[in-house]
Amino acid sequence: MSFRTIEWRDDSVIMIDQTRLPGEEVYNTYTDFKAVAEAIRGMVIRGAPAIGVAAAMGIALGARDIIADTHESFFRQLENVCDVMARTRPTAVNLFWAIERMKRVAEAGRDKPLDGIRQLLKEEAIRVEEEDLTICRNIGKWGATLIPEGATVLTHCNAGGLATAGYGTALGVIRAAHEAGKKIQVFADETRPWLQGARLTAWELVKEGIPATLISDNMAGFFMSRGEITCCVVGADRIAANGDTANKIGTYSVAVLAKENNIPFYVAAPISTLDLSLCDGGKIPIEERPAEEVTCIRGVDIAPAGVRVRNPAFDVTPARYISAIITENGIVRGDYRAGLRRIAGN
Amino acid sequence: MSFRTIEWRDDSVIMIDQTRLPGEEVYNTYTDFKAVAEAIRGMVIRGAPAIGVAAAMGIALGARDIIADTHESFFRQLENVCDVMARTRPTAVNLFWAIERMKRVAEAGRDKPLDGIRQLLKEEAIRVEEEDLTICRNIGKWGATLIPEGATVLTHCNAGGLATAGYGTALGVIRAAHEAGKKIQVFADETRPWLQGARLTAWELVKEGIPATLISDNMAGFFMSRGEITCCVVGADRIAANGDTANKIGTYSVAVLAKENNIPFYVAAPISTLDLSLCDGGKIPIEERPAEEVTCIRGVDIAPAGVRVRNPAFDVTPARYISAIITENGIVRGDYRAGLRRIAGN
Repeated sequence: MSFRTIEWRDDSVIMIDQTRLPGEEVYNTYTDFKAVAEAIRGMVIRGAPAIGVAAAMGIALGARDIIADTHESFFRQLENVCDVMARTRPTAVNLFWAIERMKRVAEAGRDKPLDGIRQLLKEEAIRVEEEDLTICRNIGKWGATLIPEGATVLTHCNAGGLATAGYGTALGVIRAAHEAGKKIQVFADETRPWLQGARLTAWELVKEGIPATLISDNMAGFFMSRGEITCCVVGADRIAANGDTANKIGTYSVAVLAKENNIPFYVAAPISTLDLSLCDGGKIPIEERPAEEVTCIRGVDIAPAGVRVRNPAFDVTPARYISAIITENGIVRGDYRAGLRRIAGN
Repeated sequence: MSFRTIEWRDDSVIMIDQTRLPGEEVYNTYTDFKAVAEAIRGMVIRGAPAIGVAAAMGIALGARDIIADTHESFFRQLENVCDVMARTRPTAVNLFWAIERMKRVAEAGRDKPLDGIRQLLKEEAIRVEEEDLTICRNIGKWGATLIPEGATVLTHCNAGGLATAGYGTALGVIRAAHEAGKKIQVFADETRPWLQGARLTAWELVKEGIPATLISDNMAGFFMSRGEITCCVVGADRIAANGDTANKIGTYSVAVLAKENNIPFYVAAPISTLDLSLCDGGKIPIEERPAEEVTCIRGVDIAPAGVRVRNPAFDVTPARYISAIITENGIVRGDYRAGLRRIAGN
């Protein structure tokens, strides 16, 4: 990869600032956990797996700065750090998965001196990041088998290197197919309001030399109806036990249009995106974000004063529209309830 | 109406500049036909019925400026004026309808002196504009019967006063329901790339005091799936004999999503939008517009250099997704082929 989404360096967290892409490639340095939480909320970093990594690193930073005389005080303050992280964004379950993982590590080290616990948390955060890269490569390896030679692959939002520790989930599948020598091209939905497709996915694909065509979201159906799309691959923010999948707003529409046009629709996501505690997608909390994301594009107002705005950041695609779910452990089809439980090793 | 889309005044054509809304309400004055053609191409004026009015007025301006010694020379030059108008935008059939209407008027006046023909053309252009307003009010009257009390109506693009001589087609239906005292609200798709929904529809609705909520295009499906949308009403740029309807890009997706969620999907358009010479929508030419409309929003670049772009400005919604077509002569349902021929008086 020619960029680094997030890394731990010299006891601080470095992130590429995704609010400033593609115009500027700027790396921000974070030295305290509240700033990391703010970066997640403000979408300096976004994408479910990347949010998980950022939360883990933020907790490691927070643990380092806790001043405590006793283990009890340390763990009470660590709980607070975790709470701050948990309140950043509600939909992506990888955030809560990473927080729980960090809590378990701290608990497991309870008999160590505080600095030892701090060291464990730092090592765990780095491990979350490193593992994510391997997971994405495995998702890519499995997913590439579903992409035919010569395919035109539609993707929505950015489930790329920028949404993960690197390589990507949906874009990981595309990268792996490209690396395998398949002559494929990508149609990237621009993904309003935040324009992850135009700003991030297009940027990654141009850097990678994978032929990419940018379209506005409302064009996807047109190209499907014209027979120009071979398949769709998207990421996920949370997958319920029955396969219902929360992902970036607009994903549901892509899935419905794909089904209507007999085009396979694939979800690519790590096991950490599964939320088997939810029996279906109806219970997934959907974040609503500020109106300004819709009415103001990169500083320019596009709507009249006084108009109301709704801005749900995610939607839920019912499992019946999903042709397969691609994970690092393999591909699940058909009976998602059984298949997802099996592949998660539960 | 608190604004005027287009009018003939003192032998010139005045248009509200739709490229500058909603930020600035500016009226441009046109005194020659080539400038009117450029205004149509550059979308200073847009919307199928309004394009028809502009073309008629442009031809009247062109006829006024023709220098000719003979009728033969006058008619040859008038043909050229009409050709320039015809080459502005390919999809909306109202453009060609208006050009044919003006040609017929000139032909019918062939035995008059040239100034008499010029006068006939000017009067006809003004008549096209005046008739359009009446037509829209009748579309509104019919259409309002389909809008239930308390409805939330989704619309796409701008089929409002700005897309017509005033009042609007889809927004005419909404206006008429509102005027009839029904407590309705509107969800307006922003309609990328040109943002007709955010810039024009939202502006009209705020001015009118009709409760309006702006969403990005990819949110429409979400709100439909949540049961928040009662029905959809859109305009049309060309309707084939079987009911297949070309309209702003994204309309097809709205229609598919509406069908999937059992929500009525209505098309509102004047008879002049019918193209009964086309047996179905497959033959409707789809304009592709410049890449910059997608990559650059109101002067701000949103995509990396080097990415390819597709920018179809329209799509075709197959008749099977359309619950009814609302015209000034009444509502057509079911067998569109027979119904449209009957309602057009053919």
